Amino acid sequence: MTRIVGLTVRDIRAPTSRTLAGSDAMHTDPDYSATYVVLATDTALRGHGMTFTLGRGNEVVCAAVRALSHLVVGVTLDDIRGDMAGFWLRLANESQLRWLGPEKGAIHLATAAIVNAAWDLWAKAEVQPVWKLVAGLTPEQYMACLDWRYLSDALPPEEALDILRAQAPTKAGRVAEMEREGYPAYITSAGWLGYSDDKVRRLCRESLAAGWTAFKMKVGLSRDDNVRRAALMREEIGPDSRLMADANQAWDVGEAIEHVSALARYNLTWIEEPTSPDDVLGHAAIRRAIAGTGIGVATGEHAHNRVMFKQLLQAGAIDFLQMDNCRLGGLNEAMAVLLLAAKFEVPVCPHAGGIGLCEYGQHLSLIDYVCVSGSLERRMLEFADHLHEHFVDPISVHGARYAAPRASGFSIEMRPESLDAMEWPHGSEWSSRG
Amino acid sequence: MTRIVGLTVRDIRAPTSRTLAGSDAMHTDPDYSATYVVLATDTALRGHGMTFTLGRGNEVVCAAVRALSHLVVGVTLDDIRGDMAGFWLRLANESQLRWLGPEKGAIHLATAAIVNAAWDLWAKAEVQPVWKLVAGLTPEQYMACLDWRYLSDALPPEEALDILRAQAPTKAGRVAEMEREGYPAYITSAGWLGYSDDKVRRLCRESLAAGWTAFKMKVGLSRDDNVRRAALMREEIGPDSRLMADANQAWDVGEAIEHVSALARYNLTWIEEPTSPDDVLGHAAIRRAIAGTGIGVATGEHAHNRVMFKQLLQAGAIDFLQMDNCRLGGLNEAMAVLLLAAKFEVPVCPHAGGIGLCEYGQHLSLIDYVCVSGSLERRMLEFADHLHEHFVDPISVHGARYAAPRASGFSIEMRPESLDAMEWPHGSEWSSRG
Repeated sequence: MTRIVGLTVRDIRAPTSRTLAGSDAMHTDPDYSATYVVLATDTALRGHGMTFTLGRGNEVVCAAVRALSHLVVGVTLDDIRGDMAGFWLRLANESQLRWLGPEKGAIHLATAAIVNAAWDLWAKAEVQPVWKLVAGLTPEQYMACLDWRYLSDALPPEEALDILRAQAPTKAGRVAEMEREGYPAYITSAGWLGYSDDKVRRLCRESLAAGWTAFKMKVGLSRDDNVRRAALMREEIGPDSRLMADANQAWDVGEAIEHVSALARYNLTWIEEPTSPDDVLGHAAIRRAIAGTGIGVATGEHAHNRVMFKQLLQAGAIDFLQMDNCRLGGLNEAMAVLLLAAKFEVPVCPHAGGIGLCEYGQHLSLIDYVCVSGSLERRMLEFADHLHEHFVDPISVHGARYAAPRASGFSIEMRPESLDAMEWPHGSEWSSRG
Repeated sequence: MTRIVGLTVRDIRAPTSRTLAGSDAMHTDPDYSATYVVLATDTALRGHGMTFTLGRGNEVVCAAVRALSHLVVGVTLDDIRGDMAGFWLRLANESQLRWLGPEKGAIHLATAAIVNAAWDLWAKAEVQPVWKLVAGLTPEQYMACLDWRYLSDALPPEEALDILRAQAPTKAGRVAEMEREGYPAYITSAGWLGYSDDKVRRLCRESLAAGWTAFKMKVGLSRDDNVRRAALMREEIGPDSRLMADANQAWDVGEAIEHVSALARYNLTWIEEPTSPDDVLGHAAIRRAIAGTGIGVATGEHAHNRVMFKQLLQAGAIDFLQMDNCRLGGLNEAMAVLLLAAKFEVPVCPHAGGIGLCEYGQHLSLIDYVCVSGSLERRMLEFADHLHEHFVDPISVHGARYAAPRASGFSIEMRPESLDAMEWPHGSEWSSRG
């Protein structure tokens, strides 16, 4: 019997603001960071998990992890395997800590780091990558991992089970297909807002040469700049590649409609985060208003829990659902949202980039395809090309496809020397900065 | 020129879980707590502010305050007075810290503590209570305090200004009325979920004798218990008093409709937080379904920002709006929500209780009446009777009315000996606990 005997958390920050990689309309200078959790057990097994932040404030999420640790230390792996939904609920619904959310903000980001570490631990114990562990669960076992509070009005649990049962007989074929061919992706690395036009052109050409056919650009507050950059990207990638634009919450509802309409001629697949991430009804209004442009609405990297996604789907607010395995309270909640998306027939294109998000996202997309949706139509996983060298089992992307992970766990374990170098504030990346 | 030269934050916790005061369906054992902020200046002026939590996790909010402090120290009082909206926006939209929200969770609770301390400082400089400071602002000055991002689709700023202008000529009369008669209140102290039936009966009788005519009870997961307690409360308070019920997020949408329908015969004024606080569409569905019972829907203590309130109003989801001056990012955001509520003609009944929330709430209700709505109809401020002894200028409630505060500031400054005793973990309230 494996028991968790310790939880450590480290404040890990990459100095990405030095190059403006990751810059967008709202996040002008991010230092991609991880609240990095290790669950130690009384055996050789260790569970690694992290949540993603932009630098300052990462110490707040570390404090939130410590506040939750009394709910984790002492728990056995059998406790987790036997009642994953209960394990999750005890973290997400702790009677005093829930006031900090509930299920949002720093406490929910911290919950994600811990919950994902528990999945890493479970998968390593089974000597499986997480996506294959989940693929191996029966529909009933999958449902037993989920907290279904607040969802039954949109999707009764029996109906969710039916979705899983419909896909179960053909799972093995999709597992084999994914191990053979990988999962389709799009690239964000070319279009950061802080990059010069020349750099964007060069990166577009390099990406095309590497086989990419779907590209995302950042847009922002100036309509003229947006149009110029969209024209530039479209010119470089040609008429047949997909182009998506990401506004990162820059606009009011009316502004969003005006800005997006001005981009209609560039044949965008989606406009991402056109307004406040909390504004379900605003997204729905934008989607209705721009329907004639053929541009879809995408959001989700800041949709903080399953109740927000439920409403985005109920309101008909989105064409693409971009869940984030750190913003949501870890894989259990992501698994519930996959079912909601399937019910409403909205494709899931997980938010990635950041640090660790590509590593996590590949598992979400594979679980979606193998267990839940059974479809690749209009589905792509985000890819950004930086910081993968810090992972023990980094993503492998070739020909615009993610290779399905084969190593045990959640692909999120970082290299010890990277952790030491990026630990804030005394790691060598920071102490040598001045 | 007064300049902020230091920010201190203290972790203050009252051991209320020992008596189950404050207990409800989700929060079974709260230790009412304050993340307590003092802004020190280069003069004798000090600005005091706090945000409310339930105990564990208060240290996380303290960490979030520290993360924001670089945006505050060095700022002058004239900077704040001259651009209160800008001061707020720099806190709420810091390019790295906003990832922890945006505008939700621990970072937004921390923003509230700091912003409210800035208001306390400003009001003390003017030798005015906060509500009178705001009452003395012109409509244009009031609007200049607000961040109007994401609101223009529901209420264009020019129309918000018109609301204020319509009330401006008659403000002086309402100020005088409030100073003479006070603001109407209801009492929550009798109906905590952890209290025995006998204790509830005794407290109802004492409250009736003290002049109370509106009472709130907690309800929860057991329909039979809820019915029994509602019958008991109604029997004690008689047919003419108002009775409200608070579910504290206990139910799914369908469950809420069933539970509330079972309470219809007890003539409830509202059902509060019937489901997830994030579920705008769920609240709207519940409101439609129970319309025939005459019971209104109330929510807001967990509505984390103005965008959530905007949607609750747009969706027709609520009959009563219960803003919280700590859950929202402080008074500026509360002032914006007052305008939204007026536009949609929904009465504001602020969330109070807790520690410090009654002290804050009286200012919100007075500003609503004097500056924004000009109405007392269906409006009541919550009252709970504990912990007021820790404040330098505590609330004064008699005959079920709050006396309008007369001392300078935001009424939130706590007594030094209380702060010392309740400081966690080494204050005498805690170190002597074992």
